[in-house]
Amino acid sequence: MTLKIGDTFSATKQITDAEIRTFAELVNDYNPIHLDDEYAKTTRFGKRIAHGMLSGSLISGVLGYQLSERKVLYLSQTLKFTAPVYIDDTITATATVTKIREDKPVVTLETTCTNQNGEPVVKGEAVIMLL
Amino acid sequence: MTLKIGDTFSATKQITDAEIRTFAELVNDYNPIHLDDEYAKTTRFGKRIAHGMLSGSLISGVLGYQLSERKVLYLSQTLKFTAPVYIDDTITATATVTKIREDKPVVTLETTCTNQNGEPVVKGEAVIMLL
Repeated sequence: MTLKIGDTFSATKQITDAEIRTFAELVNDYNPIHLDDEYAKTTRFGKRIAHGMLSGSLISGVLGYQLSERKVLYLSQTLKFTAPVYIDDTITATATVTKIREDKPVVTLETTCTNQNGEPVVKGEAVIMLL
Repeated sequence: MTLKIGDTFSATKQITDAEIRTFAELVNDYNPIHLDDEYAKTTRFGKRIAHGMLSGSLISGVLGYQLSERKVLYLSQTLKFTAPVYIDDTITATATVTKIREDKPVVTLETTCTNQNGEPVVKGEAVIMLL
């Protein structure tokens, strides 16, 4: 295995209205807090927010593609949605290797999504197996 | 709160090639195991599989939309990817209320995605706050 503790992989994407509408259709989540400006004004956020799982899914891109020279089996993911993501925020998903099992190629990574201000919006942990 | 222990919500979606390609672009996960038939034949799965997070994201649709009469803040989600999802599988995401805090409107739900054969492909737990 060429991975080592502390190795970090990341990817950045702007979450525009287009991404939010595509995700809404893809997963059938048409909650108006994501899609309806007038409704969103009445909520605690004051404006539309992105689906939390859309930001969380950017981690899939990091593990599945930034690591694409390796064959990766995605075993598990935890996600804490720690702050809202607003339209046009730019989200960076980062995965850092924190643990490598000695008996088999199972790797734990700390996974964090941050916005353009460096504020964490999703925090969690991924476990993958290298095939 | 009108929710009670055991309340169950669900949504079903077929994961076609179109969904997989849309998700790949959305989260920049172009791993060939999802997109390239020839490559996928060389893997342990023998054919292309969907992104695990795509199935997991269907839970967002259940919590965000099937519960749409309530205002829901998504606090956290755990996901274990327990079996592969193949092209054209039909996935049902189900969320069942397992715990309701007495001091505040924080609700825990067991979340499971199963394929058309009833086999679990994603298992985990969601925590939401009702606003």
